[in-house]
Amino acid sequence: MEKAIVLLSGGMDSLVCVGEAVKNHQEIFFLHLNYGQKTSERERQAFEEIARFYNIDNHHCKIIDMTFLRQIGGSSLTDDRIEVKTFQGDSKGIPDSYVPFRNSIILSLAVSWAEVVGATKLYIGANDEDSPGYPDCRPSYYKAFNQLIKEGTKALNIEILTPVISLKKKEIVEKGIEHKVPFHLSWSCYKNSKEACGVCDSCSLRLRGFREAGIPDPIDYHKV
Amino acid sequence: MEKAIVLLSGGMDSLVCVGEAVKNHQEIFFLHLNYGQKTSERERQAFEEIARFYNIDNHHCKIIDMTFLRQIGGSSLTDDRIEVKTFQGDSKGIPDSYVPFRNSIILSLAVSWAEVVGATKLYIGANDEDSPGYPDCRPSYYKAFNQLIKEGTKALNIEILTPVISLKKKEIVEKGIEHKVPFHLSWSCYKNSKEACGVCDSCSLRLRGFREAGIPDPIDYHKV
Repeated sequence: MEKAIVLLSGGMDSLVCVGEAVKNHQEIFFLHLNYGQKTSERERQAFEEIARFYNIDNHHCKIIDMTFLRQIGGSSLTDDRIEVKTFQGDSKGIPDSYVPFRNSIILSLAVSWAEVVGATKLYIGANDEDSPGYPDCRPSYYKAFNQLIKEGTKALNIEILTPVISLKKKEIVEKGIEHKVPFHLSWSCYKNSKEACGVCDSCSLRLRGFREAGIPDPIDYHKV
Repeated sequence: MEKAIVLLSGGMDSLVCVGEAVKNHQEIFFLHLNYGQKTSERERQAFEEIARFYNIDNHHCKIIDMTFLRQIGGSSLTDDRIEVKTFQGDSKGIPDSYVPFRNSIILSLAVSWAEVVGATKLYIGANDEDSPGYPDCRPSYYKAFNQLIKEGTKALNIEILTPVISLKKKEIVEKGIEHKVPFHLSWSCYKNSKEACGVCDSCSLRLRGFREAGIPDPIDYHKV
């Protein structure tokens, strides 16, 4: 049975990937990256609560501190001087929250750990709708990354899987319900850390997904 | 005039890349990664002395702490429980000093910084002879990485250059002499941090390169 690593930010997309991985693999590892985003602590809490929900022991969980990304800067998620904007619709531009090439750093680390623990599948909750204009959330990017893994690793059989990449948020909610994932433990907001703000890009997409699926979002939102 | 970043470990291969970059670009940035290897401090010293030699100011130098790689482990360079072996000839196997997929993590960070500062060329001193069996030191690996950059960045014109990848150590020494690089400031040893050990893989290849080029290596070696 192949071992799998799931990149679990604590958001709904990565949580649904956990649901998929649990269905397909017996031994699963959870990887969480704290890359200095403003809601790090809240995301870490979501990660830990989800790990507990699925009975994943400490040996199978890893949290890596990537706060050094702040040294590089260039994004509203890591640079306190750039304010996180409220939702601006499905703009085709690159959002401020873009950390240049961040996914490549994260995926490289995940592949590194996969080699060490002998995992051959890597689940990541990248989603095209979630990230319009993020160059490193497109299917062609993941295809290029899988090619890089073939060239750059000892074990030639590690593969990145992106089970929700082409799904609408509504479909992600539906898939999560099918896998009985604990949506109440997930966290998506980019802005606040106690109650979700309900207005940032990430909250807006999440709320629309639940609304279109006709299912209430079980987390609390800040009352305006 | 295009800006360039040079990944400068402090070793002779990356130093010769600096020589190349200085010839081709007016504005140059130096990037150094401390990834928790045993000789980190000594390599950092070499980096700083080389930066001073070329009058690179602080704004153009960055040192990123990647000691989190120790959390992943799996290599004799980062894991104190694995002893660094003395040179075993040009073995075709993967050396113990291999950090899984490490170059992908480093290159991803460098591309991230390149986007932020607007650099379009990235020099790295990867060398095939230096790293027989390292999967991520082969030309095909860099070709795949350049493809990944095209897919995963906003600016589509960042390119990794590997000017010494196919050179023998002898030829690297000769190219360094041609560029008048300060070999006396470089550091290659994997094992010690005061005087180079002279027997680890890295020292052995370096010494052979200078010997074959008929030029004395200007650094001190431990007297056995």
